[in-house]
Amino acid sequence: MLGNFTYCNPTKLYFGNEALEGLAVELPKYGKKVLLVYGGGSIKKNGIYDSVVGILKDGGKEIVELAGVMPNPTSDKLNEGVRVARENKIDFILAVGGGSVCDYCKALSVSINCDDDPWDKYFIRFDEPECEIVPVGCVLTMVGTGSEMNGGSVITNHEQKLKIGHVFGEEVFPKFAILNPEFTLTIPKYQMVSGIFDIMSHILEQYFSGCDDNTSDYIMEGLLRSLIVSAGVAIENPYDYEARSNIMWTATWALNTLVAKGKTTDWMVHMLGQAVAAHNDATHGMTLSAVSLAYYRYILPYGTAKFARYAVNVWNVNPSGKSQTDVAQEGLAEMEKWMKKMGLAMSLSELGVTEDMLDGIVESTVIMDGGYKVLDKKEIKHVLKDSL
Amino acid sequence: MLGNFTYCNPTKLYFGNEALEGLAVELPKYGKKVLLVYGGGSIKKNGIYDSVVGILKDGGKEIVELAGVMPNPTSDKLNEGVRVARENKIDFILAVGGGSVCDYCKALSVSINCDDDPWDKYFIRFDEPECEIVPVGCVLTMVGTGSEMNGGSVITNHEQKLKIGHVFGEEVFPKFAILNPEFTLTIPKYQMVSGIFDIMSHILEQYFSGCDDNTSDYIMEGLLRSLIVSAGVAIENPYDYEARSNIMWTATWALNTLVAKGKTTDWMVHMLGQAVAAHNDATHGMTLSAVSLAYYRYILPYGTAKFARYAVNVWNVNPSGKSQTDVAQEGLAEMEKWMKKMGLAMSLSELGVTEDMLDGIVESTVIMDGGYKVLDKKEIKHVLKDSL
Repeated sequence: MLGNFTYCNPTKLYFGNEALEGLAVELPKYGKKVLLVYGGGSIKKNGIYDSVVGILKDGGKEIVELAGVMPNPTSDKLNEGVRVARENKIDFILAVGGGSVCDYCKALSVSINCDDDPWDKYFIRFDEPECEIVPVGCVLTMVGTGSEMNGGSVITNHEQKLKIGHVFGEEVFPKFAILNPEFTLTIPKYQMVSGIFDIMSHILEQYFSGCDDNTSDYIMEGLLRSLIVSAGVAIENPYDYEARSNIMWTATWALNTLVAKGKTTDWMVHMLGQAVAAHNDATHGMTLSAVSLAYYRYILPYGTAKFARYAVNVWNVNPSGKSQTDVAQEGLAEMEKWMKKMGLAMSLSELGVTEDMLDGIVESTVIMDGGYKVLDKKEIKHVLKDSL
Repeated sequence: MLGNFTYCNPTKLYFGNEALEGLAVELPKYGKKVLLVYGGGSIKKNGIYDSVVGILKDGGKEIVELAGVMPNPTSDKLNEGVRVARENKIDFILAVGGGSVCDYCKALSVSINCDDDPWDKYFIRFDEPECEIVPVGCVLTMVGTGSEMNGGSVITNHEQKLKIGHVFGEEVFPKFAILNPEFTLTIPKYQMVSGIFDIMSHILEQYFSGCDDNTSDYIMEGLLRSLIVSAGVAIENPYDYEARSNIMWTATWALNTLVAKGKTTDWMVHMLGQAVAAHNDATHGMTLSAVSLAYYRYILPYGTAKFARYAVNVWNVNPSGKSQTDVAQEGLAEMEKWMKKMGLAMSLSELGVTEDMLDGIVESTVIMDGGYKVLDKKEIKHVLKDSL
């Protein structure tokens, strides 16, 4: 049954190969001092940095730069950003990068005017922001997280070996996002594939929960089918604009709150993947792919009907004459074949995880209760071991 | 290929059997004088009127009532609304009803502070509003049009025998919409079924255009599959909350701009249906169902691949060993079977249209150019004749 909910997603999207023109349209709505936030500097090589700085200057903005946001942004980096933003009395934050940069900027937006320690407040205590929130805009250069149109922010604390996400409300959503598929064409294949699996995982985390037959389930099946088709094209030819634009659009809708409305969700694959990354800093999508099949095969008996539906509606498994369990397992076998073809990490050992690290990873794993089976620590260790 | 576009949908939705609580949350954002707009008065029988008035009064609002908005709201009624709103210096418009009431209130919102004749300005010349727009909120009591989360407004001029829609920008979208599926349980079956086909037609108008393989196409297939399943439950048991809530949610996403993004669209079925209604005032969804099959069979040769895809992905037609044309036709045959089971109008004669009216209807038909075949007037007459 569709449960009760509210839905509001105010983020304005500019999509397409001329989307950056939207930045000039949006800038006049915000103050003069802009914090320009980016990662390792690839935007300086591909020209995006120059284009963005040109538009900011044409718009009469004063630019303060904050570079070096890492793939798993840390609480230390967050504290650095807070200091820089306060010292420069920033009016507006512009994220130029992938989901990590965007996540980081949202965490920053609720921390600049907040007296508490942001890690403790938002990621340990899960408090909601009470301070004035600095508005964020986003120029997306990497696809996967959906961070451009939601309130999610994942931050890592290496000292505590924790990687934790806080899903903020609509007041923290980016005010606008620039989605130009061309900006994503040149990222390395490993990152592209990792992003594609992040999208798939977002959908599956919301799909594999509940026994209802909601409109959301059908929308998710559509998104998955589109993703599988476009990923198949992009893995052969990463420069295929059509495929990359559909992947970008699917990513946004996979995690902008829509498909979770009115239903329960799981998120255990993300909890496992985030625990792994807190220990070895591996690429997000690859931590998810490395644990997914072991996790899904473990919980399959508790949600067989949905896994069978997945097999038929997403992977075109022919169910006739087969048991529901066989159909369900065949679906995961098809998924496994596809994952291998995509070049995804199929095991934790590929990511450098060794058996002696498992107990630590188990300790870092947040246990969610929305899936078909609430795992205990022993079961988490079992799934991780199966993923080695 | 996904074309360039912007997307922004700021409407806040409150969904579920307690959704009306959202009205009290929203009211403080708007001024004191509320124009309460509704239709024939069924909301007085089912208690919705009393609940809404109670919340308005508790919120300290002054209520001015405007009743009698008809299923195909007229330009005369629009002029009446403008007079009432001006005389009472209205701050906020609350639509309580189905799509007609909601459409009407949006037309009103851009007309109150406008000096021009609204029919001429918005529905003949398709000008955009330059005046201050009076905000609109919506309590939905009938499902189908998607009007609760878009900028569309369809107005009928009986003198000119024209029924025309203007799709306004996001500044005209309802600020919020209250979607309580329970409010829709008691409407007559004829209206429910008509609304269900309106939803299907909205999706198909956007689906049957273009030869691309966009994410939107997959989302639409998901929405159609969900609609067909839930409609099958609702036709047996209109009081099934789960089915009715999924139908309500599908209706919103069928026409809130999402699935049209980055692609072309058709809308000829609506143009034909609206021309019919301008002549005989028939129920909207039924005018669409009466012309759909004749229209789709006529354009099938120009878009065979998409019709075949529709057959397979939506109606589960097995394509093996069949020509694309046969598969495509089989899909429409499945759709016809389903339409008959739903009790939809299968011909224009059922709606009182006679052959001598056809020339007039042809004259009232606006010709769109986004479909697989741009029809000339002779072809329009042919389709209408086939629909008799």
